[in-house]
Formats: sequence, structure tokens, C-alpha cells
Amino acid sequence: MKVYIEPIGKLINEFSKLPGVGAKTAQRFAYKIINMTDAEAQNFATAVLDVKKKVKYCKICGNFSEEDECDICKRRSAETICVVKEPKDVIAIEKLNEYNGVYHVLHGTISPLDGVGPDDIDVKGLLKRISGGNVKEVILATNPDVEGEATAMYISNLIKPLGIKVTRIAHGIPIGTDLEYADEVSLARAFIDRKTL
Amino acid sequence: MKVYIEPIGKLINEFSKLPGVGAKTAQRFAYKIINMTDAEAQNFATAVLDVKKKVKYCKICGNFSEEDECDICKRRSAETICVVKEPKDVIAIEKLNEYNGVYHVLHGTISPLDGVGPDDIDVKGLLKRISGGNVKEVILATNPDVEGEATAMYISNLIKPLGIKVTRIAHGIPIGTDLEYADEVSLARAFIDRKTL
Repeated sequence: MKVYIEPIGKLINEFSKLPGVGAKTAQRFAYKIINMTDAEAQNFATAVLDVKKKVKYCKICGNFSEEDECDICKRRSAETICVVKEPKDVIAIEKLNEYNGVYHVLHGTISPLDGVGPDDIDVKGLLKRISGGNVKEVILATNPDVEGEATAMYISNLIKPLGIKVTRIAHGIPIGTDLEYADEVSLARAFIDRKTL
Repeated sequence: MKVYIEPIGKLINEFSKLPGVGAKTAQRFAYKIINMTDAEAQNFATAVLDVKKKVKYCKICGNFSEEDECDICKRRSAETICVVKEPKDVIAIEKLNEYNGVYHVLHGTISPLDGVGPDDIDVKGLLKRISGGNVKEVILATNPDVEGEATAMYISNLIKPLGIKVTRIAHGIPIGTDLEYADEVSLARAFIDRKTL
């Protein structure tokens, strides 16, 4: 026999689609919704729909935006462009309150095994921005994995000949780690990329 | 500055209301919704609204139901009534596929510290069912905590004089535990409630 009545079963199924949510957690979430007031559940559903309706991508940098052009592109100087894989990387960097330039979101990284080539990510848009403006530096902030490194290398090879400064974010052992426990790859990288004091 | 644009911030806020979901997890959930198709997001929102719209409580037993009377009350003999605290306890027991009687959901347990007295939970409904039908056994399956025990004791004292068999689910050490690691209260209870073989 079925254990859940249909609307509850359906909601549990929907919650199970969220990352890291198993049957038990989805069930707890569903009970939470059942115990909400009608207005609260309505707000919840509206927030889900609104995010699909209102969130677009900035036509310049590809970041999340409510309008054609995002707040960052509108207000900041485009002399430095930080290149990232996904919009959520922009949020991670913005949280630092350290960086004052603009971004360029590639929406992916080159990954031949997954059939993602240079034309499948937004490299063209980046080149157009560089040729059009007075860009002084391009910071490559793709992830430190094989795909991210390959993408950074690829973009660097395209931009360097244009006489623009190209930098890559530093890799090494994270702050607060004991050398003893650092992973070997990061530790090796920390030695290769050591800097003169 | 605000890091999230408004619709994303709102959705993250809604997800944070779910039990055990912090800022980081809520953010991951929100990204998942953003990456859904419009139809998928619509299904998600509909499931949330439907559960509020369609889920009612059975007029007989207080369990979740789409109609006035739940499937369990409709189809099963009411000779044995299992008394539980919440509708989700019914689901937990139904999953066992062991119990074939009906239920009675109290929607709470007696807890004087929280201001919940016998009149605040559905004891009256239970007594009405017992006086009306040919109930042979009442199984008290409230949680094995102070409130659950007190509630079981209270109901037992009301029903026993009516000549109806009243039982309480067994407490003891869980199957698969090492005696060494069992908690003291459960182990003590296992000795007190030992049964003759």
C-alpha cells in the first residue's frame, strides 16, 4: 500500500530533487510545509516562481541580474575583469568585499570529456569586451581543477598577445592548515609558486 | 552592499526556514531552482501549494487525509486502535507493514510545562470512538519521553475501567545494539520489562 497520500508524496518527491536531500530529509521538509500557515506556504511557492521569472543574466558579464545590465557592470570601472565559471562564483568573491572590478561569467569550463569546447562557453563575449574597452587586467578565477586550469590556460593564450596583463588567482595551502595535513598537490604547488619576501 | 539580487535572496531566506537548513545549504537549493526548467520550478511550487490545499485531517482518527475520512479508517476494522502523537507517527508505523488496525492521532501530548493539558489534545475523540464501537484493544504508541509516558498513563487510567485491553509499545534496548553501548535508561527498562520465555 502507499504510505503517503498523494499531495504529500508529491511534495516529498519534489524536495528529494534538491541537492543532498534524501527521503528522510524531504519528509521533514514536507511536514514543515504542512505545518506552515497558508500565507507562509504561499510566500514559499512565490519565491520559487519569482526566482525563475525575475532572474536573468546580465548581457555584459553573464552574472545573475534582474535587469539587462547587472548592478556591478553599471557601477564599476571595467579596467579589471575577473573571469569565473559560474554566477555563484561571483557571489563567493563579492562576499569577500576585496575586489572592486567587474566580472565575466563563462557559464562553464572547457571539458573535452564532457563535449564542452571553447565555443560552448562565453569566451567570445570576453574577447569582445576586451577589444572594445580599455581593459588593463584580466584575472582568471576559474576553479583549480583540470578543466579550470585548461580554460585559464586557453584564455591566457588568447589575451596575452593583445598586450593585456593576465593573472591567475594563487593556489597553495589554505590559511590555517598544518603543513602535515595539507594535501600533496596543494603543498607541491605552494613550493612552485613561492614568492620572494 | 547586498550580495544577492532580491529574488535570489528571498528564495534563500525561504529555504532557510526548513528544518536543519543553514545559509549555505539554502543557497545550494536556490541555485538548483534557478537551474531548473520553468516547468520543473512550476511543479515544485504547485506541490508546495497543493499540500496546503489538499491535505486535511481525517474526521475520525485525525490522520492526514485528502477526504473527510482517511483510507485507513475506511478500509480497516476498528477493533484495535493505535494511539499516536502526530500524523507522521502513523506513517512510521504504516511503513512497517505489521499493523492492521486503525489509528487515533492526539495531535500533541500532555505537557504541563508547555501549557498543554488533557483538553488540548484529542482524548475526547478517542473516548467517543471507544464508547461508540466495539473496540477490543487500545495500543498506546506515544513517544517514550516524559510527555509521552504521562499521556499514555493518563489515557490508560481513563480506558481501563471500561473493560478494554490497554497496551503500551515495548521499550528496551534497540535491536542490533551492544549491551555495552546501550543507554542506561533503556537498559534498565529492558530489565524491568523482561518477559518469560
